[in-house]
Amino acid sequence: TTHSLLLLPGDGIGVETIAEVERLITFFNSKSNTVRFHVERDLVGGAAYDAHGVAITNEAMDKAQQADAVMFGAVGGPKWAGVPYQHRPEAGLLRLRKDLDLFANLRPAICYPALADASSLKRELVEGLDIMIVRELTGGVYFGEPKEIVTLENGEKRAVDTQVYTTHEIERITKVAFDLARKRRNLVHSAEKNNVMRTGVLWKQVATDVHKSYALDVKLEHILADNCAMQLIRNPKQFDVIVTDNLFGDVLSDEAAMMTGSLGMLPSASLGAPDPKTGRRKALYEPVHGSAPDIAGQGLANPIATIASFGMALRYSFDMGKEADLVDTAIARVLDKGLRTGDIMQPGMTKVGTGEMGKAIEAE
Amino acid sequence: TTHSLLLLPGDGIGVETIAEVERLITFFNSKSNTVRFHVERDLVGGAAYDAHGVAITNEAMDKAQQADAVMFGAVGGPKWAGVPYQHRPEAGLLRLRKDLDLFANLRPAICYPALADASSLKRELVEGLDIMIVRELTGGVYFGEPKEIVTLENGEKRAVDTQVYTTHEIERITKVAFDLARKRRNLVHSAEKNNVMRTGVLWKQVATDVHKSYALDVKLEHILADNCAMQLIRNPKQFDVIVTDNLFGDVLSDEAAMMTGSLGMLPSASLGAPDPKTGRRKALYEPVHGSAPDIAGQGLANPIATIASFGMALRYSFDMGKEADLVDTAIARVLDKGLRTGDIMQPGMTKVGTGEMGKAIEAE
Ligand SMILES: CC(C)[C@H](C(=O)O)[C@@H](O)C(=O)O
Ligand SMILES: CC(C)[C@H](C(=O)O)[C@@H](O)C(=O)O
Repeated sequence: TTHSLLLLPGDGIGVETIAEVERLITFFNSKSNTVRFHVERDLVGGAAYDAHGVAITNEAMDKAQQADAVMFGAVGGPKWAGVPYQHRPEAGLLRLRKDLDLFANLRPAICYPALADASSLKRELVEGLDIMIVRELTGGVYFGEPKEIVTLENGEKRAVDTQVYTTHEIERITKVAFDLARKRRNLVHSAEKNNVMRTGVLWKQVATDVHKSYALDVKLEHILADNCAMQLIRNPKQFDVIVTDNLFGDVLSDEAAMMTGSLGMLPSASLGAPDPKTGRRKALYEPVHGSAPDIAGQGLANPIATIASFGMALRYSFDMGKEADLVDTAIARVLDKGLRTGDIMQPGMTKVGTGEMGKAIEAE
Repeated sequence: TTHSLLLLPGDGIGVETIAEVERLITFFNSKSNTVRFHVERDLVGGAAYDAHGVAITNEAMDKAQQADAVMFGAVGGPKWAGVPYQHRPEAGLLRLRKDLDLFANLRPAICYPALADASSLKRELVEGLDIMIVRELTGGVYFGEPKEIVTLENGEKRAVDTQVYTTHEIERITKVAFDLARKRRNLVHSAEKNNVMRTGVLWKQVATDVHKSYALDVKLEHILADNCAMQLIRNPKQFDVIVTDNLFGDVLSDEAAMMTGSLGMLPSASLGAPDPKTGRRKALYEPVHGSAPDIAGQGLANPIATIASFGMALRYSFDMGKEADLVDTAIARVLDKGLRTGDIMQPGMTKVGTGEMGKAIEAE
């Protein structure tokens, strides 16, 4: 079998961390006679804007449509603060999500045992933490219309964003959450603000309906998004899977990621619907962290989140669960050995750069 | 002088905690010959629905319009899960905010030293924490139109919420934030999502413009709301004042409140614009916590957040800063003495009920 992968390193440390994934791919290709990764590369974000004047070209979009999976680094940086709004680096990522219909964003928030002390939270609250946040990624306030700024007669401006959700959109994302919970600890929290938002009312209704087919083995709890932000801090281990909309998912997943002490370590997967014929789903994998312009280009970045994202690609796109486990184990091992990039450095550990960390994981 | 106060205890523990404010008011009235509080009472939330079939009556709204300040307890509970949407308990609170034009919601997140160990965060991160969240309260996705659920031709439903902000709305709330920062540590973080929301773009623009009149003594930092949720956990003491929209304010203030270890202790103020003639601003004061139906009616509730909210009323509505300080000191003292309600109980402390806590604060 040949698997095709499009690499979109983007900006900042994305370039360096994706290079470590390439190292792993070369390694896999050299070891296996049955599976081969065919790799293409293209630009996205500020890098694409500098080269082509857009945050992603149609050509790169075509490649993304064709590929079995996309590995995405990160986009953005102060260099592009002044570019026209529609060409800002983030626009490339948003177009990929929308045009590939990657509606299901999976963001694990796990606490690597070796890093429990790096968390802001008390050790006992985060030790062993393993939450999966399932964020709706192609709807809500990110894409609803109207979305505009107009000038009023009195010279003032009026800005509008529109949050829209349909039954279908909520059905498919809550199904993903229930299916995941089945393979985990059988608990789903659905987070919305039905007390002030109509989309929250519909969200709660549809989640309740979809749950009927899962009621035997999965438990559903409804939680208000503000309370969810609280409970994540009070007692994060009460959660297994959290399913929520695009905007709440953005905020809650960042909160959860930071709590684990493993930010810079956390991967994510964005999945489309399975193709009715082939069963294949389009997919994009990216680290939760951003482009970190302050340390970019210096070989200091932590490649683990991007490598773990490649692990998710092996699992969700290539049905290579065993190899994915190998990647995860290799990451845990180098941490246990005391190897640390600067962002997760602790007293008594061995400080390494991006490349050394990547090589060490390859060696495991 | 006579100050008029409307008490709206609402549901659940709101009834018990507002009773402790009444105790304090009686005390103030008996001690002072110059200042008198004139008190009225009415129903709101589930209690109003049970009595009148609406979450707040027009009569109660009139009283609120007339009063110098409103003291609000809490609303809601499982008892009202089935009531029609427009009459749900929260609708009473939302109507008060909107009709009184209480656009500025001030939510301090402070860590009482005696409670630093009750926080989920490591002690050194929260000890001495003192943040003020300034949340826009009458605009954004809470009130924008259209706000509806419609049934499509194919039988599916489509829900819509609309986030709207005008220049004027952003100007007045950011001014409040800059003015507060001037009396504090001269730093304002403005949190939005300008990378995906048009309201965020306008928000950032207007905040930057308004800041020009404050540039000499107040520093403005722009921060993305998701990053703000992260940074609050990573290093909360980097913040002084955070100004943000209605929805982000809802989530971020709950997160910040929980982090302090003082949830159940935290007050809030919701203020209108100063009257051009009298300088008076309409105001509503309420604890950050909710109606806690599980412990309601048992004399177990912690009255401190509601009493501290009365302290904010003294400060912001009645220009009684000295008396407000007395209330705050009294709260700190009873905590130092080891008195604790159940929610903040710690080993070696003295467990007390709602009334005992209220009396102890009165005695200080
Ligand atoms: C870069 C930005 C557009 C994006 C988002 O808001 O979705 C990011 O914060 C994320 O969470 O992936
Ligand atoms: C009760 C609810 C409508 C309210 C809100 O969402 O504003 C509450 O969460 C708050 O923060 O005061």
